[in-house]
Amino acid sequence: MSDINFYFSIGSTYTYLTVTRILDVEKKHGVKFNWKPFSVRIIMNEMNNHPFPPDKKNKVDYMWRDIERRAKGYGFSAITPVPYPLSQFDLANKLAVLGLKEGWGIDYVRLTYKRWFNEGKEPATEPNITEICSELKLDKEKVISKANTEEIEKEFLANTDSARKNKVFGSPSFIVNSEIFWGDDKMEDAITWSKK
Amino acid sequence: MSDINFYFSIGSTYTYLTVTRILDVEKKHGVKFNWKPFSVRIIMNEMNNHPFPPDKKNKVDYMWRDIERRAKGYGFSAITPVPYPLSQFDLANKLAVLGLKEGWGIDYVRLTYKRWFNEGKEPATEPNITEICSELKLDKEKVISKANTEEIEKEFLANTDSARKNKVFGSPSFIVNSEIFWGDDKMEDAITWSKK
Repeated sequence: MSDINFYFSIGSTYTYLTVTRILDVEKKHGVKFNWKPFSVRIIMNEMNNHPFPPDKKNKVDYMWRDIERRAKGYGFSAITPVPYPLSQFDLANKLAVLGLKEGWGIDYVRLTYKRWFNEGKEPATEPNITEICSELKLDKEKVISKANTEEIEKEFLANTDSARKNKVFGSPSFIVNSEIFWGDDKMEDAITWSKK
Repeated sequence: MSDINFYFSIGSTYTYLTVTRILDVEKKHGVKFNWKPFSVRIIMNEMNNHPFPPDKKNKVDYMWRDIERRAKGYGFSAITPVPYPLSQFDLANKLAVLGLKEGWGIDYVRLTYKRWFNEGKEPATEPNITEICSELKLDKEKVISKANTEEIEKEFLANTDSARKNKVFGSPSFIVNSEIFWGDDKMEDAITWSKK
């Protein structure tokens, strides 16, 4: 069985569906995903690829409705629209990088998404970040300060470089060997591929 | 059970997957799709929405690979890339409008896509169009001349207006009541919705 690398950015709306169901999916299929927070923003800017700008109203409206409908189909809820795009995109993702090194990353990402899509609380902003740290029993000042170090920045950019090398252009993306699967609805296809 | 309106443009690449499998899907699920050829080009221009421009190379490469991989998953083949975008987009679609009135539309659309994605033959160009008419036993001069009448133009634009009213922004789209499902991979979701 091949590894599945899960490239994502907190800030991607559809990634809500993925991180919410990923633990159940892992259990069901007996697989493990390697979580790789990267900057989809850097990559989209490089490609001048902005899939949901405010002027594409019908497409944006569809996205919110689609996420709500699909969340329901998976058995959970989404209250859309939510604050978007994020004002603290980098911090939100650097905290994920740090958390994955320290063992609280998956909980942090899932809780951040849950609060974003269930309560409309924007990631990595106050008072949300204080409440999240409190729930995860983290020292907020310490983790924010660590997330802003050069070490974490480097790792975040290294993930972004590796996403770019793998031709990732959006979040969520799943890479199995050199095969890309883009979108929450392609998660199962990636798993099938990994078992080939 | 509710009607499913199938809005599409010949020229959309992913629509290859849909039209190739649609008859089997109808049989399997006991449903019927209403085929509505519209101008996704007009709508995309209005929205300044161009999902696969040549400068977004990674995204375009992904599209071709994804179509090839998914076609295989469905049990048929796709030789990608194919000529894209189409030089005779309007004629290709007006022929579909005419054909759907005269009873040969579905065969025409499916054959056009088959030749496009199996042999790289661009829709509504020569000698492809001559060969298609011959295979469907159509008088080529007559159907092209009819496709270029004001009556067909009006119907094509009426379908486009109705797509716009339904907030369609891409092809293929499936509308069930006022619910939109966008993309070949949402065809089954549209069917499920129609049976609610």
